[in-house]
Amino acid sequence: MDSILIHANTHTYPVYIGENIRFQLQELLPKSYDSILIITDDHVARLYLDDLSNSLEGSSVHTAIIPAGEQSKSIHSFYELHSQAIRYGLDRSSLIIALGGGVVGDVAGFVAATYMRGIDFVQVPTTVLAHDSSVGGKVAINHESGKNLIGNFYSPIMVLYDVSTLHTLPLKELRSGYAEIMKEAFLADEKLLWDVMELDLTHNDNYERIRHLEKGIQIKANTVEQDEKEAGKRKFLNLGHTLGHAIEAELGYGSITHGEAVAIGLLFAIDVSEKEYAINLHADKLFTWLTNNHYPLNMDNVCIEALLKRMKMDKKATNQRIQMVLLEEMSKPVLIEIEDTTLRSYIESFFAKLQNWYGH
Amino acid sequence: MDSILIHANTHTYPVYIGENIRFQLQELLPKSYDSILIITDDHVARLYLDDLSNSLEGSSVHTAIIPAGEQSKSIHSFYELHSQAIRYGLDRSSLIIALGGGVVGDVAGFVAATYMRGIDFVQVPTTVLAHDSSVGGKVAINHESGKNLIGNFYSPIMVLYDVSTLHTLPLKELRSGYAEIMKEAFLADEKLLWDVMELDLTHNDNYERIRHLEKGIQIKANTVEQDEKEAGKRKFLNLGHTLGHAIEAELGYGSITHGEAVAIGLLFAIDVSEKEYAINLHADKLFTWLTNNHYPLNMDNVCIEALLKRMKMDKKATNQRIQMVLLEEMSKPVLIEIEDTTLRSYIESFFAKLQNWYGH
Repeated sequence: MDSILIHANTHTYPVYIGENIRFQLQELLPKSYDSILIITDDHVARLYLDDLSNSLEGSSVHTAIIPAGEQSKSIHSFYELHSQAIRYGLDRSSLIIALGGGVVGDVAGFVAATYMRGIDFVQVPTTVLAHDSSVGGKVAINHESGKNLIGNFYSPIMVLYDVSTLHTLPLKELRSGYAEIMKEAFLADEKLLWDVMELDLTHNDNYERIRHLEKGIQIKANTVEQDEKEAGKRKFLNLGHTLGHAIEAELGYGSITHGEAVAIGLLFAIDVSEKEYAINLHADKLFTWLTNNHYPLNMDNVCIEALLKRMKMDKKATNQRIQMVLLEEMSKPVLIEIEDTTLRSYIESFFAKLQNWYGH
Repeated sequence: MDSILIHANTHTYPVYIGENIRFQLQELLPKSYDSILIITDDHVARLYLDDLSNSLEGSSVHTAIIPAGEQSKSIHSFYELHSQAIRYGLDRSSLIIALGGGVVGDVAGFVAATYMRGIDFVQVPTTVLAHDSSVGGKVAINHESGKNLIGNFYSPIMVLYDVSTLHTLPLKELRSGYAEIMKEAFLADEKLLWDVMELDLTHNDNYERIRHLEKGIQIKANTVEQDEKEAGKRKFLNLGHTLGHAIEAELGYGSITHGEAVAIGLLFAIDVSEKEYAINLHADKLFTWLTNNHYPLNMDNVCIEALLKRMKMDKKATNQRIQMVLLEEMSKPVLIEIEDTTLRSYIESFFAKLQNWYGH
């Protein structure tokens, strides 16, 4: 088992990574809790809930199960989880455990952040994508007008990352998570980039995954430690997300995973960077890797006008001016503000290029 | 105009106190904002909304008006205020201003704390009671099972306290606010205590109020600066609140003000302290002052069993054991855990004493 320490504004917490470490939860907790509420989704519950709750002795353990999927990040789920926490008699000294992917982590984390003005919580991620969301303290629910509009910065007291749970992950969820690792590699670790470029997602093993996840988490941690509240540097982590978020929302959550949308956004950001700074960032190689790993890249029926409108609504926009992360060179991100008309022409030529690439 | 600096965990902010300073809001703000949302209630809106919004130049100023009263601290209001903030195009660099009493401050503060994971907010209290709630960073909404169960610790960037707005305050709201000042006096300032004991609430002027409010705020500030997250010392501020909260909930919010309920709880805590520590804390003089100022003290129809049940549910309880603040001596609070049966007999004899006092 490896561990990485994250220095948040409020406290320092460990991320443990290893095989089958979900059974060690109890001994890894920094203290004992009278009452614990495990929040998970109906999919993950079937697979790992018993493992986790059986490993907790001496505490009164309760569970709350939400439907798997983005719709559980609603104000309704949020309130209902509070109701359950109250019903189970949780108090200020109780613990909430988030067992699952990003959706569970976000909503359970926001419940923990707001229950009696904040109680301890632990993240137990079960997806590759959640290596990103479980570190850095962003918790939130969605508003009907946009993703993650209602939330807090609130760090867990510990992250327990059992990579053995990734065996049960569908391929498109692997794709989703590896898009963020690829993004982190472009931002800060060219060696990791070429490592992942070699990878066939259907054939990587735990050893390899642990290595990639650790590197991804370290890049994320280094960034958020310097700028937890996203006033500056943390915005670089949005590489690929300006267009990615808009595509995800436009196609409808569920029809494409978050990371798959980010992969398209990443390819776009790399493509624009190559043009803006007249450099070679290997957009063609990234395209090939995405294609070989069956990332959905067909944008033929997506309306560019609708995407632009969504990008303006994004909470990263300031006074409706769209911000975008580019790379001046490899591992050297910059944040720029981009004119609507310029952005539109970039998207048009990118979508044309995608068609063209596909044509070959 | 006077000012007090509050050192919160995240930042330091000023509390300005003075007459007619609501017209100086713009110049007192630490920076300019493109977009500002003023949240107030329908009662305060009629009186002071125009004064405030007219004093803000160069910003795009929006307003959201909630119904006056505790029912506006609901999950529904919370979500609706988020919808309005989104509709008005507020972004991470926008400002929310809470204009009103404790309800407005709590719900607007919680919206500010959670909108896009937190934006700046300013408290403009218009009640005596809000001298307490506007300082210290507690923001929250209610759950149907209990008050303030969903919230954050989130400090404003500034508090602007215009005591001229207190002229329009009904007498029972003055009583409500002065109960907290009386509590603060018992906790830390015996001189303030005898000052307020001399006071006829129907006849005090701005000069006197500013003095009392400043002293109250200073006591509150000193306490929360040492223990913002209520792990220790801040709990002393709950003097009078264990029984007070239960009475307020049992009689139904609105039939008695928060402070009026706290006044009864305070008298009870002083009464119990006198017995536990065999000292004289002038419970009789407090009773006389409360009676002279027409605080409602008739508990004849209140069910003690129901009160006990509510006290166990309180979020300050740990594992359902009731905690209570007493005074070992004047200005020397202690936190004790109290047995149900002991507490019951204390309440019984206190209620009997109230009847008896009334009998004279």
